[in-house]
Amino acid sequence: MKRRDVLGAAALLACGTSRAQTAPAFAAEDLQHAELLRAAGLQDTQAWAFVKELCDTIGPRPAGSDNERQAAAWAQARLTALGLANARTEPTPMKAWVRGPASATLVAPVTEPLVMAALGNSIAAPPAGIEAEIAWYTDFAALKADTTERAKGRIVFIDQKMARARDGSGYGPAVAARSQGAVEAARRGALAVGIRSIGTDHERIAHTGAMRYEIGVPRIPAFAVSVPDADRLAALHAAGKTLRLQLKLDAKSDVETTTQNVIAEVPGTDLADEIVLVSGHLDSWDLGRGAVDDGAGCAIVSAAAALIARAGRRPRRTVRVVLFGNEENGFHGAMSYGDRYKAVVHQLVSESDFGAGRIWQMKSRVQPAALPLIEKMASLLAPLGVAWPEQGANEGGPGPDAALLMRRHKWPAIGLAQDGTAYFDVHHTVHDTLERIDPATLPQNVACWAVTAWLAAQAPLPFGPAPL
Amino acid sequence: MKRRDVLGAAALLACGTSRAQTAPAFAAEDLQHAELLRAAGLQDTQAWAFVKELCDTIGPRPAGSDNERQAAAWAQARLTALGLANARTEPTPMKAWVRGPASATLVAPVTEPLVMAALGNSIAAPPAGIEAEIAWYTDFAALKADTTERAKGRIVFIDQKMARARDGSGYGPAVAARSQGAVEAARRGALAVGIRSIGTDHERIAHTGAMRYEIGVPRIPAFAVSVPDADRLAALHAAGKTLRLQLKLDAKSDVETTTQNVIAEVPGTDLADEIVLVSGHLDSWDLGRGAVDDGAGCAIVSAAAALIARAGRRPRRTVRVVLFGNEENGFHGAMSYGDRYKAVVHQLVSESDFGAGRIWQMKSRVQPAALPLIEKMASLLAPLGVAWPEQGANEGGPGPDAALLMRRHKWPAIGLAQDGTAYFDVHHTVHDTLERIDPATLPQNVACWAVTAWLAAQAPLPFGPAPL
Repeated sequence: MKRRDVLGAAALLACGTSRAQTAPAFAAEDLQHAELLRAAGLQDTQAWAFVKELCDTIGPRPAGSDNERQAAAWAQARLTALGLANARTEPTPMKAWVRGPASATLVAPVTEPLVMAALGNSIAAPPAGIEAEIAWYTDFAALKADTTERAKGRIVFIDQKMARARDGSGYGPAVAARSQGAVEAARRGALAVGIRSIGTDHERIAHTGAMRYEIGVPRIPAFAVSVPDADRLAALHAAGKTLRLQLKLDAKSDVETTTQNVIAEVPGTDLADEIVLVSGHLDSWDLGRGAVDDGAGCAIVSAAAALIARAGRRPRRTVRVVLFGNEENGFHGAMSYGDRYKAVVHQLVSESDFGAGRIWQMKSRVQPAALPLIEKMASLLAPLGVAWPEQGANEGGPGPDAALLMRRHKWPAIGLAQDGTAYFDVHHTVHDTLERIDPATLPQNVACWAVTAWLAAQAPLPFGPAPL
Repeated sequence: MKRRDVLGAAALLACGTSRAQTAPAFAAEDLQHAELLRAAGLQDTQAWAFVKELCDTIGPRPAGSDNERQAAAWAQARLTALGLANARTEPTPMKAWVRGPASATLVAPVTEPLVMAALGNSIAAPPAGIEAEIAWYTDFAALKADTTERAKGRIVFIDQKMARARDGSGYGPAVAARSQGAVEAARRGALAVGIRSIGTDHERIAHTGAMRYEIGVPRIPAFAVSVPDADRLAALHAAGKTLRLQLKLDAKSDVETTTQNVIAEVPGTDLADEIVLVSGHLDSWDLGRGAVDDGAGCAIVSAAAALIARAGRRPRRTVRVVLFGNEENGFHGAMSYGDRYKAVVHQLVSESDFGAGRIWQMKSRVQPAALPLIEKMASLLAPLGVAWPEQGANEGGPGPDAALLMRRHKWPAIGLAQDGTAYFDVHHTVHDTLERIDPATLPQNVACWAVTAWLAAQAPLPFGPAPL
């Protein structure tokens, strides 16, 4: 079945009559204004200026850190300077994890320091460190399938590989090794767990990221080594060598602190109480400077909202920029936002959190009756190189904070998929710096977001509830 | 004055008569054999096999480590397998430095972990670390020129830059910041010293390397940060910020151990007591796998000697391969070699220790009477793309171990300069791995070394003493 047939059927279901007569439609002047925003977005310089200043003056912004708070104060002022209204910072308590010095050294069959990073939330190792034989697993499934005592008293190493893909689809199947590896290893009596970095590069850089423990399962230290270091271990293992590792890992957990969301708006008119939420997350991992993840996203949606604010027409609904706190390690910002605004009608939740590459696809998660509107929005993005897929167009999801809110509150969503082919080369590493953003790709993002937010604000019917 | 005129003059000086009548010359059959070796060298596969197995099975070989000893045992066996005689390992005592975990974190104006590495020989910081304001210096000269109290109670940071050059000439002017920075900083009351990595890359990798202390000057911890991290500090400093750093650095010094030279020979005939020494160093820094520095050099000279051994004609003088121990952090191997063999006539000392790039220039340091022979040798290397310079052709020097022996014993030397344009991108870093060697450049090196060693062994007069 073709896309237009699906939509026709959806419209029929929703309205009980033929599409030509009843399909909801945007006002002509709203579409014209969208075209104006699109053209202006392609000339944007604000997104680059935003992310450059954020990275240059603050840099890494771990959840709950002073840097994250400094970034919030900076962003609130910046959003006001960009012409947005009601700029504010909404704090929420959290317990933070703080990295300390760490090292992992192969001590048999030869001695070799590995390039490594502790995973977020890892407990510290004892001060003297942990030294043990490695129990090597080809991937996370192999560890989960192991019913022997092989891991007991050893350091488990999971050589889980990740595939490169434009849509980042290699991440999901791989990341469980990072998030759940410690639990599965500890269940089998392991002393610590190491993983191949969840990333697509072949550099000697380690990818950090969140891991978690489970109540009732012993907590063991967790770390990632670079992909070439994992290849090194794999080669020695394949050669039949017995590998021994010495791990030193210092870290603090459960540090009482706060994170915060930064919010600013383009106030609506007749439907001002309804919210079109565009977002990014202001926190980042600590190893890089949070440029790609997610300074870029914060910059893009802020520049898009600024464009709407100064384009001469106020939207019907309120366009709200939210720069979430602590996306990376607990979603405290998103949960706090949901708690606070759960009674408010959300016409849209969306998030830019997949780097700075060009947007190539739009998907939605809206009530079927609104699909003709989404299709119209997609047609305005088509000249920017954005496709609306034949299949699964309304089975989309937004970035992670917005996805949490969509699921929790049935708030409708739009996802604008960026080209993430290179995203996982730098994700959660020391290479997440300004140099990894191509300033030339940002204006297309700003144009897409400005058109999307504007038309969502002007839509003649609600996008929600989200079909989940 | 043109080169040939200089040589003519040298020959005149040496012989007291015209060059055409008296210039020493190689026997025709020795030159023919050199051409045969040159052709065979270009087909070499042994050098790549050598360095690959060394890196894959052993990896990093810090001076005095078990890895270095394992590498020596491996190399002795390998040289025998390559057809060399008298393969042996000659140990010598030394005190080793052993790296521990370390971190350097900017804590003001924002918090940011820096990519860093302790410098070789650095003392440990106190367990609680050192936290202090940074006294920033644009280069080492600025620190030395400082007569104020600015460094007192602070962490000195030296932003010494290094220029890229084919001949590595940027290294000399820059490396004093690393080797002497701690002394100059401590003289001014500093608590620690950090430097911009002495390297030509712009990657987030730190370059380690030896530093030294002086008797009577307090010992302070010393480290290097990556070039982009140094740029970060420079930008914050230029913006007028006060920088504070927290340093944690664990290390062990003066660990009693041994290093060793590995030696093997192609025995000579009528002049067997005279030595043509070709060398590399088997030790490496610990961060990478010692591929470029100096697995490649060991591989090249070993393959070249192996070529001579199996080419059907025994040399007049003995061609001796020496794979030195501890070049990187004290020259214990070279000094021990000199002590042991000081009474032996050395026709040549030479070393391949500048990576794996193609050889582009030959220089010498021989008695003037031997220069026509050197010029003839150079003419045999010319088809391989090797130049003999118009100026300073006899003011050359070999790699560092051989240079020490040349200076100490007046042993004559030849330097075969490799293209080092990219050498300092990876020098003393995690990137010194097999991937950074282009296997295609090794055979040209082997051919050059085989020709050079063979003709030095056949020369009709002594190359020494070296004019120093």
